[in-house]
Amino acid sequence: MILIAYMTHHVVYVVGHMNPDTDSVCSAIVFAHLLNEWRKKDGLIKLDKEAVPAIQGEPNPETKFVLEKFGFDVPEILDDAEGKTLALVDFSDKSQAPKNIDKAEIVAIVDHHKIGDITTPNPILFVNLPVGCTGTVLKLLFDWTGVEITKELAGLMLASILSDTVIFKSATTTELDKKVAEELAKIAGIEDITKFGIDVKSKLSDVSGLSAREIITRDFKDFDMGGKKVGIGQIELIDLNLIKDRIDEIYEEMKKMKEEGGYAGIFLMLTDIMKEGTELLVITDYPQVVEIAFGKKLEGKSVWLEGVMSRKKQVVPPLQKAFEQV
Amino acid sequence: MILIAYMTHHVVYVVGHMNPDTDSVCSAIVFAHLLNEWRKKDGLIKLDKEAVPAIQGEPNPETKFVLEKFGFDVPEILDDAEGKTLALVDFSDKSQAPKNIDKAEIVAIVDHHKIGDITTPNPILFVNLPVGCTGTVLKLLFDWTGVEITKELAGLMLASILSDTVIFKSATTTELDKKVAEELAKIAGIEDITKFGIDVKSKLSDVSGLSAREIITRDFKDFDMGGKKVGIGQIELIDLNLIKDRIDEIYEEMKKMKEEGGYAGIFLMLTDIMKEGTELLVITDYPQVVEIAFGKKLEGKSVWLEGVMSRKKQVVPPLQKAFEQV
Repeated sequence: MILIAYMTHHVVYVVGHMNPDTDSVCSAIVFAHLLNEWRKKDGLIKLDKEAVPAIQGEPNPETKFVLEKFGFDVPEILDDAEGKTLALVDFSDKSQAPKNIDKAEIVAIVDHHKIGDITTPNPILFVNLPVGCTGTVLKLLFDWTGVEITKELAGLMLASILSDTVIFKSATTTELDKKVAEELAKIAGIEDITKFGIDVKSKLSDVSGLSAREIITRDFKDFDMGGKKVGIGQIELIDLNLIKDRIDEIYEEMKKMKEEGGYAGIFLMLTDIMKEGTELLVITDYPQVVEIAFGKKLEGKSVWLEGVMSRKKQVVPPLQKAFEQV
Repeated sequence: MILIAYMTHHVVYVVGHMNPDTDSVCSAIVFAHLLNEWRKKDGLIKLDKEAVPAIQGEPNPETKFVLEKFGFDVPEILDDAEGKTLALVDFSDKSQAPKNIDKAEIVAIVDHHKIGDITTPNPILFVNLPVGCTGTVLKLLFDWTGVEITKELAGLMLASILSDTVIFKSATTTELDKKVAEELAKIAGIEDITKFGIDVKSKLSDVSGLSAREIITRDFKDFDMGGKKVGIGQIELIDLNLIKDRIDEIYEEMKKMKEEGGYAGIFLMLTDIMKEGTELLVITDYPQVVEIAFGKKLEGKSVWLEGVMSRKKQVVPPLQKAFEQV
């Protein structure tokens, strides 16, 4: 035990955000590799400790598929940061960090999100770019520093980009993501990027083993909208037909959740990646918000929203305004 | 007036920290240039507005010398950020920002300090590296993006590095700063880097036009040390002989400041850049702190501290501990 406690001080844990997705897990593995290569030669930062990838929870089926395909183990779980040395990937907000993040030393951050509230007492490497994926930023760091990208690491970064940008269809996609993905596909030996993207994204489309409650809550967030409690979930599917038979069951479960949780409304986005739109399942005391928010009247249980793929950018803001009016 | 107010929304002000030094002013000019070049081609961020350098106060004599030497105007003053679009260089702390920074949109940050408390609602470019100067980080951004470095811009970046690293003698200097400085010197056509560094740093050594009070307070900070109010100033000189004749006058002024301000002690670091050490002028109710902090007994007005050049790293921490003991 003493030996282990002693040893943990001699590593840098490279860790992504809570509720890990493919980008946060793969980027931890890739950045740990890059940091260790920098230890051997001149890097932008020079660590005196070995970098080890870590994860804040079980990887999802998509991530497991990607790790297996390229021959990587699932990183070890890190849930308490106290006394540890960390490098962060794919987040810079304390709310997404392991507990006791204020008692950890942070030595580097690579991210592609808004700038969060993590501060440091010393200068560190912090590279955040407004692109679609942390994998894209990491690819640039390899290019800039001349560290070789192996076939396997290229696969991880490519899968991260395809996952995060929903095969380049998300509003967050930039030209740089596409260019970097093409370069990575060459290194990884992947000829058809779109086909590989569908392979990756389809792993989260298989909901046959999940209960209705698990489907609704896999990616579910609470919001305060005009003083009302609103829950919005999202599930991304290759084809909505995969879930068609379970709509009634899911809808009944949403009703239960609404009563149990005292929600003014529960919304579930069934996003069709290939058709680039969302079937929005709705149970609410204020059905008029749908028309106010999206210009389409709710008839029955759901409404089809053409082109809507992002909860953050396309669903939360109009619903927020609508709930403030009713 | 309406026209001007309208126009200010169409620029991005690139601005460094309060009490501007050479790095913060030159980096604002250099990064504005880089952002504008990115507008013409694919960059890491694509602005829809022209970037304009700005400054939070009058430049010091060193900075004025550098701007004149390479043919740049003093940037315009920006003291209120309300409603403006900003890119930040050389800081990421709200305490060093123009007022109303929370009412500004921040689109990019390039820095080399600890990570500060500025957050953003959207993803932005934030590149912070643990090196000696923001100029070093900017040089890497030019390399990474392939934007050409003109002779004049190279001069600004080189002067910034020499200023911030005290001609590579500061404890913050990295191998990367030295390597980048050599590359910049070639572009700028400067053969003797050290000679140019002395030219730059000597501009702040000319204290002949300053009153004793101005010399003490040019870079002066208050600290709470064990419940006692302590003031520590620093002035960096090419040669301590430049100030030798004025020591008595300065010491009398320090006495006055101590009485007026109710200080437990006032310390003035007369740092000799070339000899790499500091003559520490001391007036305090607790003269024993000098021996506790630095292992040398105070005899007379001052004590020579070999190798001490950094207030933050080498003077504040030991004095803090010493004042907590007395």
